[in-house]
Amino acid sequence: MKIAVLPGDGIGPEIVAQAVKVLKALDLDISMTEAPIGGAGYEAAGDPLPEATLKLAKEADAVLLGAVGDWKYDKLERHLRPERGLLRIRKELNLFANLRPALLYPELASASTLKPEVVSGLDIMIVRELTGDIYFGQPRGISKLENGEREGINTMRYNESEIRRIGRVAFDIAMKRNKKVCSVDKANVLEATELWRQVMIELSAEYPEVELSHMYVDNAAMQLIRAPKQFDVMVTGNIFGDILSDEASMLTGSIGMLPSASLDENNKGMYEPSHGSAPDIAGKDIANPLATILSVAMMLRYTFNDEANAQRVENAVKKALAQGYRTADIWTEGSNKVGCNAMGDAVVAAL
Amino acid sequence: MKIAVLPGDGIGPEIVAQAVKVLKALDLDISMTEAPIGGAGYEAAGDPLPEATLKLAKEADAVLLGAVGDWKYDKLERHLRPERGLLRIRKELNLFANLRPALLYPELASASTLKPEVVSGLDIMIVRELTGDIYFGQPRGISKLENGEREGINTMRYNESEIRRIGRVAFDIAMKRNKKVCSVDKANVLEATELWRQVMIELSAEYPEVELSHMYVDNAAMQLIRAPKQFDVMVTGNIFGDILSDEASMLTGSIGMLPSASLDENNKGMYEPSHGSAPDIAGKDIANPLATILSVAMMLRYTFNDEANAQRVENAVKKALAQGYRTADIWTEGSNKVGCNAMGDAVVAAL
Ligand SMILES: CC(C)[C@H](C(=O)O)[C@@H](O)C(=O)O
Ligand SMILES: CC(C)[C@H](C(=O)O)[C@@H](O)C(=O)O
Repeated sequence: MKIAVLPGDGIGPEIVAQAVKVLKALDLDISMTEAPIGGAGYEAAGDPLPEATLKLAKEADAVLLGAVGDWKYDKLERHLRPERGLLRIRKELNLFANLRPALLYPELASASTLKPEVVSGLDIMIVRELTGDIYFGQPRGISKLENGEREGINTMRYNESEIRRIGRVAFDIAMKRNKKVCSVDKANVLEATELWRQVMIELSAEYPEVELSHMYVDNAAMQLIRAPKQFDVMVTGNIFGDILSDEASMLTGSIGMLPSASLDENNKGMYEPSHGSAPDIAGKDIANPLATILSVAMMLRYTFNDEANAQRVENAVKKALAQGYRTADIWTEGSNKVGCNAMGDAVVAAL
Repeated sequence: MKIAVLPGDGIGPEIVAQAVKVLKALDLDISMTEAPIGGAGYEAAGDPLPEATLKLAKEADAVLLGAVGDWKYDKLERHLRPERGLLRIRKELNLFANLRPALLYPELASASTLKPEVVSGLDIMIVRELTGDIYFGQPRGISKLENGEREGINTMRYNESEIRRIGRVAFDIAMKRNKKVCSVDKANVLEATELWRQVMIELSAEYPEVELSHMYVDNAAMQLIRAPKQFDVMVTGNIFGDILSDEASMLTGSIGMLPSASLDENNKGMYEPSHGSAPDIAGKDIANPLATILSVAMMLRYTFNDEANAQRVENAVKKALAQGYRTADIWTEGSNKVGCNAMGDAVVAAL
C-alpha cells in the first residue's frame, strides 16, 4: 500500500507528522512518500500542485493531506494560490465524493455553542459532490462588458451521471447507517438542482430500504440549527456542500476533531482534516492533530477496507480523550492540556 | 400613500389581516388595495403574478406581502409555481436590496437552540442582493447533451454596478448602526465573487468610518454558529444571502418574529415576514402575525420615512410580548397562549 503524504501549509506539517506516527505504530505494510502542495508547492516548484506531487498522488493508493493556504499567498495570481492546488488535485484524481462526518464526542459536548440536548449524540454524514458544480463549470471569469464595466461569471452545471454517482455513494453509506438520505437542493429556483432532485428520485428506486427526503438549501441551513439530529446522511452539490458541511461541523464545537475523505470511483481517496491550515498557530505545537489522525481511520476504512484498524485508531482517539488529554482548542478546566506532538504520542500510547 | 396588499398563500391571508389592522389603527393617510399572488394568483388568473397584481404593485408606494407557496402547486409547470410569482415581482419592481434583520427578543431568548450567552443581544442586519446572481443569470435550464444525458445549468453573474449599489445600501445602514460591514463571498473559488470583493473594497474608500471585513461563505456559515455577535451588517449575493439569512434567523429561535424589506433605488419597497406560507397550519388561527406586523414597521421606516410610527409599532409588539401574549410557536410554560387574531388585537391595544 502506497500513501502520498502532502503536509501542505500552516499547521499541515505538524498535524500530518502525528498522523504518520499513528500509521507507523499500526505496523502495516505501507510505504509513505512526502511531497509539497499548496503554498509549499509554490515555494518548492512555483506551482501549488507541482507535477511531481501530482504524479506521486496518482501512483499512490491513498493521499494523506494536511491543509493548504496562508495569507501570505493572497497576492499571488489566481492560478498560483494554494487553494488552486487543492481544487486541481481533487479534479485530477477524480475525487468526486467528499465525506464529511459531523460527530459529537460526548467528552467534548460542552464545546458546542448549541444546547446539549439539541446536539448530544449528533452523528451526521455529509456527502458532498466535489468535482462538479459551480466550482469547475465553464464559462467562468471576469470580463469587460460593452459599457466598460466588469462582469464576473461562474456556471453551475450538473449532468445526470455526475448526480447519479454521488447519489449512489450517499445511498450506499445510508444502508450502513440509519437508512435515511436527505438530498439538499434549490429546486424551486435553480434548474441544475431541479435535475439533481429528479435523478435522486430515480435512483432511490434502487434503494427501497432507504428513506429519501428533499430539502431546500436555505431550509437545510435552518434545520441544522433547529433540530440537527433529524439528519442521518445528507447529500448535496459542491457549493451547498461546502457551506452546509462547515455549518454542520461547527455544531459539534470542535472542528479540530473532524476528518474527511474524498473518494474516486474505485475508493482511492484523499484524506484530510475538515479544518484549515491555521497559519496563525503554525509551528507552535498547539494545533489539534486528532482530525488528521481520524482521517487515517477513514483511509483504513474506505481505501484499505480495514475496518478493524480503522476502529483501533478511532478507539485510541476516544481513549486519549477519556484519559483527559486535550489540545488548546478543546481544553476545558480540569483536563490535561497538551501540545500537538504530545497528543499524537497519547494516541499512539492508547493504541 | 398607496399600499398594495398581497396576502398570498397558506397563512398569508390571516397574518396580513393582522398587519392591516395595525396599519389602520395608526390612522395614517393611506389607501390599501388587495390582490392575489402566488398560488392565489394562479387560482384567480392562471398566473402566480397576474398582470393586474403587478400593475397595482407598480403603482403603489409600498407592497405588503404575506407569503407564497403550497405543496399542492408542486406539480405545476415551473413558470406557474407560486415562487415564480415572488421572483418575478422582485425583478419587475427592481427590488435589489433585501434587508433581513436577525434580532433576538430578550423575552424569547430561551427559544433559541443556542446557549443564551452566545445569542443574548444578537442584532445582525443581513443585506442580501435580490435581483441578480444565479437566481436570474442566463443561460439556464435543463437540456440534452450529445450523449443523450440531461444537463442542468445556471449562471452566476454580477456586474460592478449591481455590486456597488447593494454595497452602498449595506454601508449606509452600517453608518446608522455599529459601523461594521462583513462582506461574504467565495472569492477563493468563484470569479463572480472575486469581483464582488474588489468592488466592496473600492466602495469602502467612500466610507472611511465603516470597518469592512471579508469572509468566505463557508466560514460565515460557521461563524454564525460559533460567535454570531461578532456581526453587525453582513452583505452578500442572492444565493449566499438566501442561505445565510435563514441560518441567522434560526439563531433567534423565533423565525415567526422576523420581518424583511426588499427595496428599490428609491426606497419603494416590498415588506414581508422572513418565514414561509406554512400551509399545514393555514386557516387555524394559530400562526404568528408578529413578523408581518414588524414588516409594517420596516415599511414605515424605509419607504415612508416615518421613524416615529415605525418605533410605535415595534414598541407595541414588545409590549404585547412583555404582557405575556404568545402564539403557539413562541409559547412557553407560564405565558398566555393566543391565536393569530388575538395577537393582532393585543398589538393594536398596545398601540
Ligand atoms: C479551500 C477551499 C477551496 C475549499 C473548498 O471550497 O472546497 C475548502 O473550503 C473546503 O471545503 O475544502
Ligand atoms: C421561495 C424562494 C424562491 C425564496 C428565495 O429563494 O429567495 C425564499 O427562500 C426567500 O428567501 O425569500
